[in-house]
Amino acid sequence: MTVGVLGAGQLGRMLALAGYPLGLDFLFLDREPGTPSHQVAPSLFGSFTDPALLDEIASRSEVVTFDWENVPAEALERLAQRTRIAPPPLALATAQDRLLEKELFARLKVPTNRNRAVDSLADLRRAAAEIGLPGVLKTRRLGYDGKGQQVIRGDKDIESAWQALGNSPLLYEAMVPFDYEVSAIGVRSRSGEFRMYPLNRNLHQGGILRLTRAPWKSAALEAAARRTLKRVMEHFDYVGVLAIEFFVQRGRLLANEMAPRVHNSGHWTIEGAITSQFENHLRAICGMPLGDTAARGHSGMLNLIGAMPQREWLLGQAGLHLHDYGKSPRPGRKLGHVTFVETTARAADLRANRLLRRIESL
Amino acid sequence: MTVGVLGAGQLGRMLALAGYPLGLDFLFLDREPGTPSHQVAPSLFGSFTDPALLDEIASRSEVVTFDWENVPAEALERLAQRTRIAPPPLALATAQDRLLEKELFARLKVPTNRNRAVDSLADLRRAAAEIGLPGVLKTRRLGYDGKGQQVIRGDKDIESAWQALGNSPLLYEAMVPFDYEVSAIGVRSRSGEFRMYPLNRNLHQGGILRLTRAPWKSAALEAAARRTLKRVMEHFDYVGVLAIEFFVQRGRLLANEMAPRVHNSGHWTIEGAITSQFENHLRAICGMPLGDTAARGHSGMLNLIGAMPQREWLLGQAGLHLHDYGKSPRPGRKLGHVTFVETTARAADLRANRLLRRIESL
Repeated sequence: MTVGVLGAGQLGRMLALAGYPLGLDFLFLDREPGTPSHQVAPSLFGSFTDPALLDEIASRSEVVTFDWENVPAEALERLAQRTRIAPPPLALATAQDRLLEKELFARLKVPTNRNRAVDSLADLRRAAAEIGLPGVLKTRRLGYDGKGQQVIRGDKDIESAWQALGNSPLLYEAMVPFDYEVSAIGVRSRSGEFRMYPLNRNLHQGGILRLTRAPWKSAALEAAARRTLKRVMEHFDYVGVLAIEFFVQRGRLLANEMAPRVHNSGHWTIEGAITSQFENHLRAICGMPLGDTAARGHSGMLNLIGAMPQREWLLGQAGLHLHDYGKSPRPGRKLGHVTFVETTARAADLRANRLLRRIESL
Repeated sequence: MTVGVLGAGQLGRMLALAGYPLGLDFLFLDREPGTPSHQVAPSLFGSFTDPALLDEIASRSEVVTFDWENVPAEALERLAQRTRIAPPPLALATAQDRLLEKELFARLKVPTNRNRAVDSLADLRRAAAEIGLPGVLKTRRLGYDGKGQQVIRGDKDIESAWQALGNSPLLYEAMVPFDYEVSAIGVRSRSGEFRMYPLNRNLHQGGILRLTRAPWKSAALEAAARRTLKRVMEHFDYVGVLAIEFFVQRGRLLANEMAPRVHNSGHWTIEGAITSQFENHLRAICGMPLGDTAARGHSGMLNLIGAMPQREWLLGQAGLHLHDYGKSPRPGRKLGHVTFVETTARAADLRANRLLRRIESL
């Protein structure tokens, strides 16, 4: 069985590496060669909206998925007439637009921060007055890793934020004074079977995920996250892996955003769970039974960002698993990650903090 | 860094899947397309002795290794003049010839069964008389998975065994009434660092490995196996993974044969050890620090031979990891394997036996 994948980044690469042992073959489509997945699987190159390329990937794949959130909706529409697509295109379209996402959360009664669509400077002034300051102005589309965002702390920031982002449809959100961030990752099969991984606690730096610790033990938060994940997945009749990021505010979850795909905060599942998020995404979209999502021990995952720490040092650390995405270094770019699994939560916390300090000094 | 691999079977495939996360690239050479490694990495096709192909793989690879024991010695000689090769060609040449292997064991004082070279029917009669019956007549070269062997139980079998195999150089060995079989897998780095995985207990059926359980706890056997592995590896100034199969006879180890490569009885290390044998082979031959060889729990590995059991059933078993090699079915052919990890040895033994019975009935 061949799985077509739109986007050939590190997520696609890890999907292929998880899928080969299941006997799957892969075919990627991306804009240019040299991408992380291209190094490990056959790939087509060109525009995501090129009908000939889309028809080729459709005719050669039993199911098509995506490793990138900004795949154009028209590409999926054309594919949907020719082959099976999972996760559902409507989930992707919703995740691509922060306003649709917030409207979904409201409709499903998922708590989230207050927000308002902004299409003019006057809108922005009204939103800031109504929702209050500080707040964050975000582009509705194409934002990731902190890009396309302006923090508005006082009235004086309103005009410059508008200058920076005003040529796109926008959303103004209350800035949430959160205690910490968690994410929940679930998988749902074609027949509606649902499983969730243990909760992840995440640390972002400069808008980019730096560190994940899992399982993050909190029965109350996990139960709340499970209800939300399940509700969102059932709404879409979802098939595959879905992640939702939450702020934790005085013991309550506030949904921040969702990702209709395998997620950076779930990379620890490769070594730290019985079945990785990558394998479970493939099991789901290929109509196979889901795998066990239980944790093996207490994991930590650190992203390697911008420059690769000395490989010799990383590989010399007992039990540290390197995942090099084969990308060339660039400031702010995710080049790889490392994972470790400890037998206790305390040992994992200590190791995560030590490693974070050490990697920052390398 | 690019690793060249001669032979593109399932061992090469699992090497590539373990090597991509280390940031390695691969280039395979095999006789024809459609091999398991070819599905996951760039490959060259043609004769192993084609100078142009060998020169291409040498010029594109920082180090060349092999996934197949019968790579012609002349191929390695040509490569050795052009790039780095690991493991050492002399170890491969020794493993390719049962007589050289037995002579090595004798020289290094590694206990093995009694044996004698056979080049004529008269030699065979003398060997049978001297060593005794029953015995096994084996081709010195190109035997694997029980092929190229004839059991001689009585004088009446001598002539038919000679008829079957007599056109190759042969070895006659005492048939050892062993209690069970174990194998030891070690890895040695360029700087001489040595690590050994926990011992494997193996069950063969029809000359083919069927089941491995690890760790097989026996401090005395493990210490003896470690001494032997270390001695053999130091003899060759070995770099990479080496496996030695042993018969256990009244608590003593008798070396049966060695494999200068990753080994089927070490496949459990993918899920069941901190660092897999595949990753450690690559770390060693690429000059990286070795990874931890400790076990994570108690593993069982079953080969899937001849026909693939129903995938739906396999994937529906909690915590069962499928490794499909992407090969077409054929009687006696290894098509894949499954691994599980349990928390106690007893649970792993029970599960292995249950699974063995079930897979045979599928």
